[in-house]
Amino acid sequence: MAALLLLLLPCLSVAPLVLAEKGLEFPRYDGKDRVIDIDSNNYKKAMKRYSMLCLLYHKPIPDSKELQKQHQMTEMVLEVSQKRRGNRRWRETGGLVEEGSVYVFKEDRVIEFDGLLAADTLVEFLLDLLEDPVEVIGNALELRAFDRMEEDIRLIGYFKNEDSEHYNAFKEAAEQFQPYIKFFATFEKSVAKELTLKMNEVDFYEPFMEEPVTIPDKPNTEEEIVDFVTEHRRATLRKLRPEDMFETWEDDVDGIHIVAFAEEEDPDGYEFLELLKEVARDNTHQTALSIVWIDPDDFPLLLPYWEKTFKVDLFKPQIGVVNVTDADSIWLEMDEQDLPTAEELEDWIEDVLSGKVNTEDDDDDDDDDDD
Amino acid sequence: MAALLLLLLPCLSVAPLVLAEKGLEFPRYDGKDRVIDIDSNNYKKAMKRYSMLCLLYHKPIPDSKELQKQHQMTEMVLEVSQKRRGNRRWRETGGLVEEGSVYVFKEDRVIEFDGLLAADTLVEFLLDLLEDPVEVIGNALELRAFDRMEEDIRLIGYFKNEDSEHYNAFKEAAEQFQPYIKFFATFEKSVAKELTLKMNEVDFYEPFMEEPVTIPDKPNTEEEIVDFVTEHRRATLRKLRPEDMFETWEDDVDGIHIVAFAEEEDPDGYEFLELLKEVARDNTHQTALSIVWIDPDDFPLLLPYWEKTFKVDLFKPQIGVVNVTDADSIWLEMDEQDLPTAEELEDWIEDVLSGKVNTEDDDDDDDDDDD
Repeated sequence: MAALLLLLLPCLSVAPLVLAEKGLEFPRYDGKDRVIDIDSNNYKKAMKRYSMLCLLYHKPIPDSKELQKQHQMTEMVLEVSQKRRGNRRWRETGGLVEEGSVYVFKEDRVIEFDGLLAADTLVEFLLDLLEDPVEVIGNALELRAFDRMEEDIRLIGYFKNEDSEHYNAFKEAAEQFQPYIKFFATFEKSVAKELTLKMNEVDFYEPFMEEPVTIPDKPNTEEEIVDFVTEHRRATLRKLRPEDMFETWEDDVDGIHIVAFAEEEDPDGYEFLELLKEVARDNTHQTALSIVWIDPDDFPLLLPYWEKTFKVDLFKPQIGVVNVTDADSIWLEMDEQDLPTAEELEDWIEDVLSGKVNTEDDDDDDDDDDD
Repeated sequence: MAALLLLLLPCLSVAPLVLAEKGLEFPRYDGKDRVIDIDSNNYKKAMKRYSMLCLLYHKPIPDSKELQKQHQMTEMVLEVSQKRRGNRRWRETGGLVEEGSVYVFKEDRVIEFDGLLAADTLVEFLLDLLEDPVEVIGNALELRAFDRMEEDIRLIGYFKNEDSEHYNAFKEAAEQFQPYIKFFATFEKSVAKELTLKMNEVDFYEPFMEEPVTIPDKPNTEEEIVDFVTEHRRATLRKLRPEDMFETWEDDVDGIHIVAFAEEEDPDGYEFLELLKEVARDNTHQTALSIVWIDPDDFPLLLPYWEKTFKVDLFKPQIGVVNVTDADSIWLEMDEQDLPTAEELEDWIEDVLSGKVNTEDDDDDDDDDDD
């Protein structure tokens, strides 16, 4: 029995749509089919014909009405996301693994899109892939833009100029992680000085940490940089982002996630997030510790589902342990008016890591439907 | 002839979906109809039955296949956005105006949703409406959260306590503008001191301005606050937001918008935005000046459409004049490596306001199709 209702009310006077203002026309489904069903017969021909491919690997379309409608929605997302993009250059290649996945073929890489299958998220992902893999920082003001990106994994290197072989190795490494990890470079001595970077040196910034780690043994080869990033990419505190949310969620630690909900735009949420950062900075040496921060503002559609699944009020900050196999969870009891201190939070995290606090002690697991 | 293709590749081995991880299940269309077609026969019954209503006012469903599919998509957006929301309290009332609009009925207010009709944007709008109209700032750390919201119109008042009649007037005013304009209050002397607020005083912060304006003649009635906000709400520099993008776009100045594209996450875009803020601060006294800042990151689906309509490269910062009647536009020529100075930008803006720079001198208005 829903207390909320959506209505469609036909207005029977068919007045012409008074839309004098121009400039914000959103792409809508226009009746043209731009998504092509690929099978073993037309596969090769399509691969030859198009310079860029975005591919959804799916099961044969089921016949129940409900599943067909789901499939139709996915297809429409792809169509809307593709409709407005015509003249970009990509090249195709092969190699598919997971059912239900979206792959992008760009030059000699196959990049899996492991994010939310929504038109805007997918298009933003594609747009990010079209940008240069390395952004160049030219002055102090641009450096401030770099400083503000504390949520992201970032690397920055100081090189002689664009022709430097070490810059080139850095750029090749950047391509391996685009668009998930951000690579920056500077050729300016003044910028390098402010970053305390020596020539050919590369610094790695973990999200929310104040100090970077320098990649050892400069100048670095592409392989050294790739290996370093691969080893260090799981952060102590990482933000769940629509563009790689499933990848992050699948990268659990021993079957659990420590999950913190905090709305950055909300004073309470901001306060709690600052506390989390403090705890993360103090404990970044603990390799078994990884906290996933979720800003509810980024996932309005999941909010009611999470509230129901985790049985918590997400209009205030929360931290808990989630078992990723059954979504069973246990949450730290907090008073909204009186957030825990950093010490209390660290004690709780220690209890989680030692197993003293765990989801198995919480047996209340009724899985009723959401209506 | 598109160089980009989306493929649907059925994987013929029907392996069971290996999705061991739980906790991120997005709501999908489940086959249940939650959107009800309302007509003159069932209107009153529905109004009585549900405590909260979200209503789309539309033309009779057309019969062409294409338009029907569009309608189906809109309906699915409403269904997905509504599916996970059950137990919230609203009350219904009457009054409809515009065809194609979405209205929310909350207590004695009818709030028009004049934003992007996407499930996440609509749900976030509804969630924001469910929060308290006034956020209370209790300490210095929460005040930092307030300070960071420079993109938003914000008001903050200092009151004795929650029972203060002046706080109540403030709260009543806040409800008139929820969720578009943010209202904050503090009951703490230390917070008020930092804001240089006297008892019962209310400060109004225009977006991107460093100093607030104090509403005169404290203590203020609800009406005084509402009038002040109504008079001052069009900012010198305002960010286009999905939740009220159409409202902003319709609020043009003499049929034009000065539009600036700048990606805040990009070093160049950040630098240009800082320049814009400087110019806006220096010219906030000019009531005829309003610059709409668009961060392309917020509108990935519109980007290719804008690039085509405005004939500009949006991978770098841009500023121009857009005629909202025909979307005709003219753009300041800029060198990516060498952004204009604040003076050059002010000169150009002066030329726009005086009519020396205008869209009518630009006659290249070929309106070819986008495929």
